[in-house]
Amino acid sequence: MSSRTWLLSLCAAALLPLTATAAPERTFPSEEGQLTVSTLAEGLKNLWALAFLPDGQGMLVTERQGNLRIISADGKVGSPLSGVPQVWAKGQGGLLDVALSPQFEQDRMVYLSYAEGGGDGDTAGTTVGRGRLSSDNLRLDDFNVIFRQQPKLSSGNHFGSRLVFDRDGYLFIALGENNQRPTAQDLDKLQGKVVRILPDGQVPKDNPFVGQSNVRPEVWSYGHRNQQGAALNPWTGELWTNEHGPRGGDEINIPKPGKNYGWPLATHGINYSLLPIPEAKGKRVEGAVDPLHVWEKSPAISGMAFYDNPRFKAWDHNLFIGALAAQELIRLQLDGDKVVHEERLLGQLNARIRDVRVGPDGFLYVLTDESDGALLKVGLTQ
Amino acid sequence: MSSRTWLLSLCAAALLPLTATAAPERTFPSEEGQLTVSTLAEGLKNLWALAFLPDGQGMLVTERQGNLRIISADGKVGSPLSGVPQVWAKGQGGLLDVALSPQFEQDRMVYLSYAEGGGDGDTAGTTVGRGRLSSDNLRLDDFNVIFRQQPKLSSGNHFGSRLVFDRDGYLFIALGENNQRPTAQDLDKLQGKVVRILPDGQVPKDNPFVGQSNVRPEVWSYGHRNQQGAALNPWTGELWTNEHGPRGGDEINIPKPGKNYGWPLATHGINYSLLPIPEAKGKRVEGAVDPLHVWEKSPAISGMAFYDNPRFKAWDHNLFIGALAAQELIRLQLDGDKVVHEERLLGQLNARIRDVRVGPDGFLYVLTDESDGALLKVGLTQ
Repeated sequence: MSSRTWLLSLCAAALLPLTATAAPERTFPSEEGQLTVSTLAEGLKNLWALAFLPDGQGMLVTERQGNLRIISADGKVGSPLSGVPQVWAKGQGGLLDVALSPQFEQDRMVYLSYAEGGGDGDTAGTTVGRGRLSSDNLRLDDFNVIFRQQPKLSSGNHFGSRLVFDRDGYLFIALGENNQRPTAQDLDKLQGKVVRILPDGQVPKDNPFVGQSNVRPEVWSYGHRNQQGAALNPWTGELWTNEHGPRGGDEINIPKPGKNYGWPLATHGINYSLLPIPEAKGKRVEGAVDPLHVWEKSPAISGMAFYDNPRFKAWDHNLFIGALAAQELIRLQLDGDKVVHEERLLGQLNARIRDVRVGPDGFLYVLTDESDGALLKVGLTQ
Repeated sequence: MSSRTWLLSLCAAALLPLTATAAPERTFPSEEGQLTVSTLAEGLKNLWALAFLPDGQGMLVTERQGNLRIISADGKVGSPLSGVPQVWAKGQGGLLDVALSPQFEQDRMVYLSYAEGGGDGDTAGTTVGRGRLSSDNLRLDDFNVIFRQQPKLSSGNHFGSRLVFDRDGYLFIALGENNQRPTAQDLDKLQGKVVRILPDGQVPKDNPFVGQSNVRPEVWSYGHRNQQGAALNPWTGELWTNEHGPRGGDEINIPKPGKNYGWPLATHGINYSLLPIPEAKGKRVEGAVDPLHVWEKSPAISGMAFYDNPRFKAWDHNLFIGALAAQELIRLQLDGDKVVHEERLLGQLNARIRDVRVGPDGFLYVLTDESDGALLKVGLTQ
């Protein structure tokens, strides 16, 4: 327990009626041992993403309506940083993912993805930019845009998005199709794609579609619906992403260069009415890659993190994914690239889980997407 | 298959791409055999309740925004009936439950529960009234109010409600606390109560609190939160109700006269933040009855039905409950008044299930709470 939560536990014992709800740290049974859950911070609005700063400086967190804050390792919540761009905070839009430059110690660069309005006020798209974190950690300096999803088609849904740097320093952006299904198959549009760019926004010469006419050269893979989770597999160096299905059919994919992941032609989602998704041809179609893993009942999966920390041995080679509708943290046991077992955790919290990351201390850090959202620290008693 | 769904299946085969989503009847595995699911009607908005008419005349269904319709046994959807009262359709409010008089063949009386505005436009409460279904089934005549929840305190949440007649013809109304927690313990208010009245609204002389000062004589039991399911146990003749917990703690209760069911003093709900529910003293408190069954993770349970039809033997003595957040149909196997086994059904539909009833043909009839809601007919292949 941190000194703050230790102090709070004293206060709780002293001031609050003795109930299961009063404890600052609670435990829940799980297959691998007792989960310990403590609330590091609360009262935050629609938390979306977090990124750890080096040297125990805590973490950057985003609130969807447009705040970027620093929360200290012991849970002190800082004021919103200045220098953050104006975001289009409507529907699912707003300030979304945050990632640090691979050379953060040298360049202090912070990358943000967010919904940006089209100027007409009615449409928006996903934009990615970067700014330099000031030495006093109070603002982003010289923020500039390095990527814009074109055309701007969203009326409020399916912005994605996640930002992942690979080992060679390329930046992957996992996007949504702005709820405009067919665009995920249009290679001249940036909806429903994974794109791959350089940290300054330039297009790598070895991208799969470079030099082809009527194709956006940023495209890495296509046929995606709404990707809200992505992470680099620490054991293979490959990008993994996840996406929401329509009604059912949430997927995990390993996007390969130039490949088609099927949406909306192929989906495992089903409709309880008699009307299928207009473009859907079935669960599989010629030329589209099947998902690595699929859920027929949509948990509404979001941020994900591979567990590669020595702290909790039982979690080694596991993949954790937040679930919004299911209000759980999903634990997937991996054997190579195969999912061999699934466990649902933290259901007792009844909270929409938007993001999960592994801290430098080996604990899981979990964000809940609520009007009164919380940052949770989750460990294991072995 | 009804003639309509048989015809539709021909059309589907002829006109629609061959996909899992196109079939008018689908099957899903379950512990007791293959579930068969057909969509009788769709394109209905926020369906809330249904009641079967006698002699194969189909069923009355409510749409929350204020429509009462008749759907024929083969799924033809009628126009909204006239003579239905104006409802306060905000938040969770609107037209809610529908029930037939126990002497419907003679009196044609239809009972409705609904949210009614307080006149100031800001507050509302649950009201119950009845009208006579015209012989042409097109309107309710002489609708009059027989019960009003007093005072009107809701700003949009926790109206309940369900209507259940017992074997002696008493009408039970399962209510919510209008999201005003402490009122569930105030016996001079009708929030958070089960009330028991005569079909014309008079108060039975043998109600538990009759004659006591500062107590509403309609009160049967108290300490309830938001009751959205109720049914008469066909084997005991007792009323069963269910209610939503805060975060976790959904409950099934058997309300006994004059008893306290605990809310908000006793709850199994927990809060992931450090702040407990202000009034909560724990999961149990002196003088309050423990729930018969409780869920620590809230499925957000709604309408429920006991299965007492010879059609599907494997379901005998089962209790079915719709789940909104969990998007499932919950099957509870009973041994007397004990829940001995739970199964979750229809998760593959990814649909909020608002109500379930057993039809005269022994099939389950299920309503989905969606902007494009459906009436589903669910059977079992044994």
